[in-house]
Amino acid sequence: MPYVNIKITNEGATAEQKAELIQGVTELLQTTLNKNPATTVVVIDEVETDNWGIGGEVVTEIRKRAK
Amino acid sequence: MPYVNIKITNEGATAEQKAELIQGVTELLQTTLNKNPATTVVVIDEVETDNWGIGGEVVTEIRKRAK
Amino acid sequence: MPYVNIKITNEGATAEQKAELIQGVTELLQTTLNKNPATTVVVIDEVETDNWGIGGEVVTEIRKRAK
Amino acid sequence: MPYVNIKITNEGATAEQKAELIQGVTELLQTTLNKNPATTVVVIDEVETDNWGIGGEVVTEIRKRAK
Amino acid sequence: MPYVNIKITNEGATAEQKAELIQGVTELLQTTLNKNPATTVVVIDEVETDNWGIGGEVVTEIRKRAK
Amino acid sequence: MPYVNIKITNEGATAEQKAELIQGVTELLQTTLNKNPATTVVVIDEVETDNWGIGGEVVTEIRKRAK
Repeated sequence: MPYVNIKITNEGATAEQKAELIQGVTELLQTTLNKNPATTVVVIDEVETDNWGIGGEVVTEIRKRAK
Repeated sequence: MPYVNIKITNEGATAEQKAELIQGVTELLQTTLNKNPATTVVVIDEVETDNWGIGGEVVTEIRKRAK
Repeated sequence: MPYVNIKITNEGATAEQKAELIQGVTELLQTTLNKNPATTVVVIDEVETDNWGIGGEVVTEIRKRAK
Repeated sequence: MPYVNIKITNEGATAEQKAELIQGVTELLQTTLNKNPATTVVVIDEVETDNWGIGGEVVTEIRKRAK
Repeated sequence: MPYVNIKITNEGATAEQKAELIQGVTELLQTTLNKNPATTVVVIDEVETDNWGIGGEVVTEIRKRAK
Repeated sequence: MPYVNIKITNEGATAEQKAELIQGVTELLQTTLNKNPATTVVVIDEVETDNWGIGGEVVTEIRKRAK
C-alpha cells in the first residue's frame, strides 16, 4: 500500500504522459518490493516554475538563460 | 502543535465542507491525543483527477468507467 | 481515496491512540466529504522535539521552559 | 542535497519575493549545515485560504474578522 | 529536476531493493517525461505499521489477521 | 502561518545546528514575506543515506566513492 508523491515543474506534461508515469511507478513498486498495485496511490504535483528553485535560483530564470 | 495535510481529488468540495473537515480534524487531535487546537494546522490539497492514480490507473479513467 | 499525513511530536502517543486517530480521520472524511473509507490512507509521522520548531524556537526548549 | 517544501497561503507573494526566499533558504542551509547549494531544491506551495486552517478555523474567516 | 517521495511500510525492504527502486523511478521520469536524471531526487520513508492506516484500520492489525 | 518541511540526509546535524536552522528559516519568512513568526512551523526530517537518491544513485554509494 505505498504512497508516492511526484513533484515536477508545470511545463506541459500531457494526461497520457502522466498516466504512463502512474502506471510505471505502480508496476515498479510491485516488481522491486512486491507491493500490491491495487492499493498503491500516486499523486503528481505540477509546480509553477516561479515556485521551484535549485542552486538558489528560480527555474523560471534558469529556463530563460537556457534559451 | 500537529500539522495535518489532507490530499483529496478536486471534485467539488465546498468551502463549508472544507471548513467542517478542518474543524473536525482539529477537534479529533484534541480528544485523542490532547493536542492544543490553537497551534494545530490543517492544509487541504485538491488534486486534479488526471494527477491521481490508484491501482496503476488515473482517477479520470476510473470515474469515466463508473458512469 | 484521500491521503492524510499527520505530523505530531514524538511524545508518547500509544498504539491505541494512533489507531483511534486513524479511525476517526477516516470516518470524518466519509461524513464530511462522502469519501470511501476502503481507500482512505492515513500516515502518522512522529517527529523528535529537536526537529520541530514553532515561533522560531525548538520544541525541546519550549518543553523545558514549561516545566 | 536538501529538499525544502514551504507552504504559505496564497495572498499575493510576488515572483521577486519568492526568488528571494529560495535564495535565502539555500544560503541558510549552506551556512548552518554546510549543504551544497548546487543540489538544494526548494519548492513553494501557495495554498488557497479556504484550504488552510489554524485553531480549527479556516484562514478565509480569520482574515475577514481581522479587517 | 523532479522530486519523488515514496512512503512504504517498514517491513524489511533491503538496501539493494531500495537502490533498485531509486534507479527505476529516476529512469522512468526520464523515459516518460524527459526529465534530467542528474537532478532527480528520490526520498523513501519507511513508516512503522502502527502509524499507517487504510480503511480506517492500522496495518499492524491487518497483518495479524492475514497470518 | 507558513509550514516548512526540510529534508536532509542523516549525517550528524547537531541540535544546535537544527535550532539555528529553525530560527533562520522563521526569520527569513518574516523578512521576505512578512509572515508572523509566532505561527511559523518548521519540521526537519533526517533521512538515512540508504533512502535518499540523486542521479539515480543512493547517497550511501555516493559517499563511499567520495572518500
